[in-house]
Amino acid sequence: MKLLKEKIQQEGIILSESVLKVDSFLNHQIDPDLTVAMGKDFYQHFSKGKKVTKVLTIESSGIAVGLTTALEFGVPLVFARKKKSLTMNNEVFVSKVYSFTKQETNEITVSKKFLSADDHVLIIDDFLANGEAALGLVSIVQQAGASLAGMGIVIEKAFQDGGQKLRNAGFHVYSLAQIIRLDHEKKKIEFREEALV
Amino acid sequence: MKLLKEKIQQEGIILSESVLKVDSFLNHQIDPDLTVAMGKDFYQHFSKGKKVTKVLTIESSGIAVGLTTALEFGVPLVFARKKKSLTMNNEVFVSKVYSFTKQETNEITVSKKFLSADDHVLIIDDFLANGEAALGLVSIVQQAGASLAGMGIVIEKAFQDGGQKLRNAGFHVYSLAQIIRLDHEKKKIEFREEALV
Repeated sequence: MKLLKEKIQQEGIILSESVLKVDSFLNHQIDPDLTVAMGKDFYQHFSKGKKVTKVLTIESSGIAVGLTTALEFGVPLVFARKKKSLTMNNEVFVSKVYSFTKQETNEITVSKKFLSADDHVLIIDDFLANGEAALGLVSIVQQAGASLAGMGIVIEKAFQDGGQKLRNAGFHVYSLAQIIRLDHEKKKIEFREEALV
Repeated sequence: MKLLKEKIQQEGIILSESVLKVDSFLNHQIDPDLTVAMGKDFYQHFSKGKKVTKVLTIESSGIAVGLTTALEFGVPLVFARKKKSLTMNNEVFVSKVYSFTKQETNEITVSKKFLSADDHVLIIDDFLANGEAALGLVSIVQQAGASLAGMGIVIEKAFQDGGQKLRNAGFHVYSLAQIIRLDHEKKKIEFREEALV
């Protein structure tokens, strides 16, 4: 997605060879028009012959782009909640997600009321790096017995192995921007030109 | 807002005389069309003669309605982050928020990059009860030296004192639905007919 790549080039801050800060438009301050454009792009890609009945994301940074995508499809958005520890609860689907950046394991939960075996779920998230969060969401879709329509990612760090892992597992992963290299010294961001689907 | 009140009547679950669960359309599963309608209503109310340059909300449940409101105004959305403990950081505005439901104090933060003395800030949030979260956001606006255009609330629990406190302090508070009573026994929700502004 050209508009997104330009925004990343203009406003992304390379903190290290693996960390890119995009808090001016994606995960702290949010650019509403860009978020709508991203939702439209996901819709264009995933609506071709695929049925989608729910969009599933994870709090907090997935909510905005999840909402604009759900709006295009005309279906509800469900966001998984993150908790450090969980009181036992039979009313939720639970999955463990390890965060490499925070070096902690969170449990993510979705109420059983909002996902069922009849659902066709499109997972949307802001970042894909090692794939931990995505796999946690996949697990919740599977626990519900729902089918997975695909996974739409705003920024994929293609130099980490999450995308490869998910595609090898047979999931349909589509990323709006794939970064193949963050050059901290030269402050350069390299994108994969042809989006790998 | 008629549509919202109907939705609350249909899907709201009264857990006690003070707790209403609206997770089927507002804070776990989200109804995108209703969220757009709420953004339009806030725009209609707050755009009359008021300048708004930023919409400010708090993660996670404020993000969706904050986004649709920001979209109408054509301005960025900023969401404050919640943290249990904070490493000292000169780059953020910080405010303490006590949660009565969780009985814990969180710190909410906003990067200094995204709010300045030139900003006219509209605060948007999903719930107003005792006003703790709202006052935390007001404090951040004040720390930035920005001016406060107003506060838009989706559901105000008018039987708690937050709304009164904020209005007495001179803030312009507008709520889409004001609940004056939750009758747990009869499973009845009473709204204030004329929205108090």
